[in-house]
Amino acid sequence: MHPFDTATLLETLPDGSFRGHTSPAYANMVGPFGGVTAACLLQAPMQHSQRLGDPVALTVNFAAALADGEFSIVARALRTNRSTQHWAIELSQGGEVAASATAVFAVRRETWSAPEAAPPANLPAADALTRAPLIGRPAWTRHYDMRFARGAMPDAFDEQQQLDSVSQVWVRDEPPRPLDFVSLAALCDSFFPRIFVRRRKVAPIGTVSMTTWFHADTAMLQAQGVRHVLGVARALNFRNGYFDQSAEVWGDDWQLLASSHQIVYYRD
Amino acid sequence: MHPFDTATLLETLPDGSFRGHTSPAYANMVGPFGGVTAACLLQAPMQHSQRLGDPVALTVNFAAALADGEFSIVARALRTNRSTQHWAIELSQGGEVAASATAVFAVRRETWSAPEAAPPANLPAADALTRAPLIGRPAWTRHYDMRFARGAMPDAFDEQQQLDSVSQVWVRDEPPRPLDFVSLAALCDSFFPRIFVRRRKVAPIGTVSMTTWFHADTAMLQAQGVRHVLGVARALNFRNGYFDQSAEVWGDDWQLLASSHQIVYYRD
Repeated sequence: MHPFDTATLLETLPDGSFRGHTSPAYANMVGPFGGVTAACLLQAPMQHSQRLGDPVALTVNFAAALADGEFSIVARALRTNRSTQHWAIELSQGGEVAASATAVFAVRRETWSAPEAAPPANLPAADALTRAPLIGRPAWTRHYDMRFARGAMPDAFDEQQQLDSVSQVWVRDEPPRPLDFVSLAALCDSFFPRIFVRRRKVAPIGTVSMTTWFHADTAMLQAQGVRHVLGVARALNFRNGYFDQSAEVWGDDWQLLASSHQIVYYRD
Repeated sequence: MHPFDTATLLETLPDGSFRGHTSPAYANMVGPFGGVTAACLLQAPMQHSQRLGDPVALTVNFAAALADGEFSIVARALRTNRSTQHWAIELSQGGEVAASATAVFAVRRETWSAPEAAPPANLPAADALTRAPLIGRPAWTRHYDMRFARGAMPDAFDEQQQLDSVSQVWVRDEPPRPLDFVSLAALCDSFFPRIFVRRRKVAPIGTVSMTTWFHADTAMLQAQGVRHVLGVARALNFRNGYFDQSAEVWGDDWQLLASSHQIVYYRD
């Protein structure tokens, strides 16, 4: 079993709620990697008996650092329409909410379609880049193969402030695993904190809220398979304890698979 | 009383829930303008007795078209930490959830801060532009003064597809009203559907989910007062029934007040 599937495995309990367990493979500095928590919160409606369609929108709010160990998830279908379904999801540990989420699922049909944004031009292919070093990095980074064209985690936190926080990175699960909605939700949180790239200074940080739009459908994810996707991430603003991040995830056929936005707490 | 305050007026009931009423002043094509619904969902924790700090993040999911008339809102503080507070909010009509939201509030303190994005350069001032016409537009547009530098609603839906959907617009409440978090939340939904700008073709649309990050604090909003703010909106992708929109709202001192992202359903 792939470590990602172990980490996002949810047992359905008789009352319709779910039980999961944090995974040492995806440990972060404190508690588990937030991307896997987001993936677990999406996994609950994905495997719910009332599920309609595929995810279009996912918002995850990280209310507290998860403790290593068991957690429970309750997913409620708030409203099911003809082609859309709205979910409210809560993850608890010891009777306290540690994360909450909302998700919108939809049955999509073919319509007029057009891209507007484009991925960066003239990027080296993933094969032409070397994998980012893992020394001194938390466990979860070992389960992503990241190849930075620009804006890698700094080798040294030398406090040389950069002009921007833009990263361009080819990334896939390690070991390779076919892309699906749940792994894409996690991958959208795999970009290192923008403040580290911009400021090159270590500081406590924590994502407080993260929203992902899924532009892809199942067929597009299946066509992408195990190959690297291209992530592009940047911040708009760092101000008084909170900065934002906007990221796009592109397939290697240059189709937009997901766009994801988060707001992150930081201390000086 | 300003029509916006009437539209977002919530009565606190003895059980701690809230009662509101849709307002004809902010009527849209079908039901009320979504921005005012978002504002009502934020208003509930804003005036809740347990509130800590100011809003940092707001996600609103529009599950169904609201009917004109009364609605009830329940806001639950899921978790209150030392400096952050997580809310789950539901708006119901006739016992059915019509919209849900999550919000993160925080007590912010001064830290190292730095902008990264910048507003468009060389834009004409609001005074140098004329107010967008209102003929044939739904009621809510009469309560915004919008002055487009670029990407106005097309005068004619001539199906001449445009290269992009970018809009640059000075906007304020009409009549003028001092900016606050609740009015800013509504204003973030005041940009016309990107697909109308891009495709110049009328089609049924509806926002399904919308996330706003508040970069500003109360002092910045008070300093902005009643003057126009600058909105910049664009889409990344239109695909099989859903397109996204990213918008930034800048103060006229070029500080970023909010960034807002939504995903919108459309039919051909």
